[in-house]
Amino acid sequence: MDRPTEPGRARTSLEGRRASVTGTAALPKAVIVATGLYTPPFSVSNTELVEAFNTYVERFNAANAEAIAAGEVAALAPSSPEFIEKASGIKARYVMNKAGIVDPEVMRPILPERPNEEISILAEMAVEAARQAIERWGKPVSEIGAVICAASNMQRAYPAMAIEVQQALGIDGFAFDMNVACSSATFGIKTAADFIATGSAKAVLMVNPEICSGHLNFTDRDSHFIFGDVATAVILEAENQAKDGWEILGTRLKTQFSNNIRNNFGFLNRTAPEGIGAKDKLFVQEGRKVFREVVPMVSEMIVEHAGDIGVDPTGLKRLWLHQANINMNDLIARKVLGRDPEPGENVIILDTYANTSSAGSIIAFHTASDDFAAGETGLICSFGAGYSAGTVFVRKR
Amino acid sequence: MDRPTEPGRARTSLEGRRASVTGTAALPKAVIVATGLYTPPFSVSNTELVEAFNTYVERFNAANAEAIAAGEVAALAPSSPEFIEKASGIKARYVMNKAGIVDPEVMRPILPERPNEEISILAEMAVEAARQAIERWGKPVSEIGAVICAASNMQRAYPAMAIEVQQALGIDGFAFDMNVACSSATFGIKTAADFIATGSAKAVLMVNPEICSGHLNFTDRDSHFIFGDVATAVILEAENQAKDGWEILGTRLKTQFSNNIRNNFGFLNRTAPEGIGAKDKLFVQEGRKVFREVVPMVSEMIVEHAGDIGVDPTGLKRLWLHQANINMNDLIARKVLGRDPEPGENVIILDTYANTSSAGSIIAFHTASDDFAAGETGLICSFGAGYSAGTVFVRKR
Repeated sequence: MDRPTEPGRARTSLEGRRASVTGTAALPKAVIVATGLYTPPFSVSNTELVEAFNTYVERFNAANAEAIAAGEVAALAPSSPEFIEKASGIKARYVMNKAGIVDPEVMRPILPERPNEEISILAEMAVEAARQAIERWGKPVSEIGAVICAASNMQRAYPAMAIEVQQALGIDGFAFDMNVACSSATFGIKTAADFIATGSAKAVLMVNPEICSGHLNFTDRDSHFIFGDVATAVILEAENQAKDGWEILGTRLKTQFSNNIRNNFGFLNRTAPEGIGAKDKLFVQEGRKVFREVVPMVSEMIVEHAGDIGVDPTGLKRLWLHQANINMNDLIARKVLGRDPEPGENVIILDTYANTSSAGSIIAFHTASDDFAAGETGLICSFGAGYSAGTVFVRKR
Repeated sequence: MDRPTEPGRARTSLEGRRASVTGTAALPKAVIVATGLYTPPFSVSNTELVEAFNTYVERFNAANAEAIAAGEVAALAPSSPEFIEKASGIKARYVMNKAGIVDPEVMRPILPERPNEEISILAEMAVEAARQAIERWGKPVSEIGAVICAASNMQRAYPAMAIEVQQALGIDGFAFDMNVACSSATFGIKTAADFIATGSAKAVLMVNPEICSGHLNFTDRDSHFIFGDVATAVILEAENQAKDGWEILGTRLKTQFSNNIRNNFGFLNRTAPEGIGAKDKLFVQEGRKVFREVVPMVSEMIVEHAGDIGVDPTGLKRLWLHQANINMNDLIARKVLGRDPEPGENVIILDTYANTSSAGSIIAFHTASDDFAAGETGLICSFGAGYSAGTVFVRKR
């Protein structure tokens, strides 16, 4: 089949539509009225991670000494906390299980199965984040008409995680899962905003539970430090009934296929049993290519979108970017602002949370937005596997 | 955590919103302008399936004769084509691989892995269905602004299947995956319709690739016959630019959590290795409970939704229901129509396609709607795991 290599970009903002509305009935805008954050109980420092990794490397090299000497197996190289911090800006990450990750004989989280009658671990994390958002919102859950679970990996195919979250919180209406990797949250915000604009729901709960340690190869020197676990929640509500919150000035979504971030784990693996357990069944990344291709794609998208909706990007009070990598985030911020960001202007939570896939930009927004005055603007922006990217410009009401 | 047992239902139709619009600018309605169907190359009859199953049973019982005699292992019971047809209405199913399924030593499809540079098998199926829909539509793909892959199981977590489909077809804009099991297509139609109503896209391609044989336990007498493989595609377009097609009179979505259809396969299985390969990592169903609970839920939802939008359900020319089970489909049709359906009125494609999860109601619509005259109405309706249900009332333009 033909595979064109450079699909372009479509404008998906509401503003285009609004501009063409000539009657008196504008679409009801969606407002971000509350967010919530669930932080897992355990933090793993780079030093702890490297200690386990280097022990794993020593044991691997010792066990394979003969084959390594014969040139049949490549010796593994040890790592260091300094390398990790320089490469990524990450100093630690939160995880749902620490014992397995720091055990050189295990090198993966250990999360015992739960019976079907108990809530799934991913749903439980989402519910914790959602409860915080609902409490901050201060309205009854009966106001919520839809639940979207938007994350980079789901616990199972069915029943949908979103329905389990919906039930745990006693929410009516409809729920479904959606996935577009690290951009799931901004795509979820856009979808929720459209449900509100059409009256499909008066308010929408969008959750992003991520156990990224579950699809991370802890034996791979280049990537074992990248991810952490977390859950975030966002509630959106129709403007005409929301008090306070954040007006959405515009949303734009873009995807462009790339294999440079890929994970081939899936239900069809059993139809090709020879590949089960291979490295491609976990997160695999061509980091340099991603850096080179995604930075211009995202920074140009931000600047262009800002221009189209009449926002001066250099006047944004704050950037809440996907937390990918300190060098990537710094470079995108410089390109958008046209200068080095002031301290705190380009929010970084990578140091303590690491990359948390879809949740990163929402953690940044959740933890660094309370000081906004009415009228001040900021940008929630995601990017990642797909490739996918989403921009959500907001203004404090 | 508390788990309320009976969340209610929210109205998610556009009509509520429309009724409250008092200005001159109504939301642009979405029109279903084309559908496409990809049918896999192999058909497996009940006789062929039972032959493999009964051989498997004989060999299992022989290999475990001693333990069975000692009461430590339960003997497996053979099946028959008559039992399957009576229980389900299914006579055959299409599959992407037949050799593995009918081999008593394999009992699963064999689908060799493809290199990342080749299109994934699920994306390829979706693209075939999409190409047919695009051809029937007769417009350039540059008109399409979004691609939704809505299915009950995705090939992988990332990059999203929808982005791979988008690239293969040369479509701009954005794409993402969504999953709410057998109801994915109606939820996808609703989401696409809302994207069109808000101007987020002028046209949306929604695809439903299903390799249900990949998550089916072919050694389980109660369920091994249920599923088949297929892909469907639906294109929706804004009313003001669409020629012909099907006006959407109303959509309604509902979810209510249930463990009665469940599959615990997922990326976290490696964090609990003791459960890998257990039966709950494939489709498991409490068939009788599903029948008892879903039939009233869906038939009441259809009748209520019809009433709310002023449609007489007994006047519908045709029902295109999710293809679950002949007894379930018959009973829902009788409850909706208030009488036995006339031949062809309640479309059944179960006999040749079996249950194809999200694609079933779309196959029915695709294969049995060409004879509609302008003004005639019908119902696309899905239901299944979650529980989830979606109603889409349409009128030929």
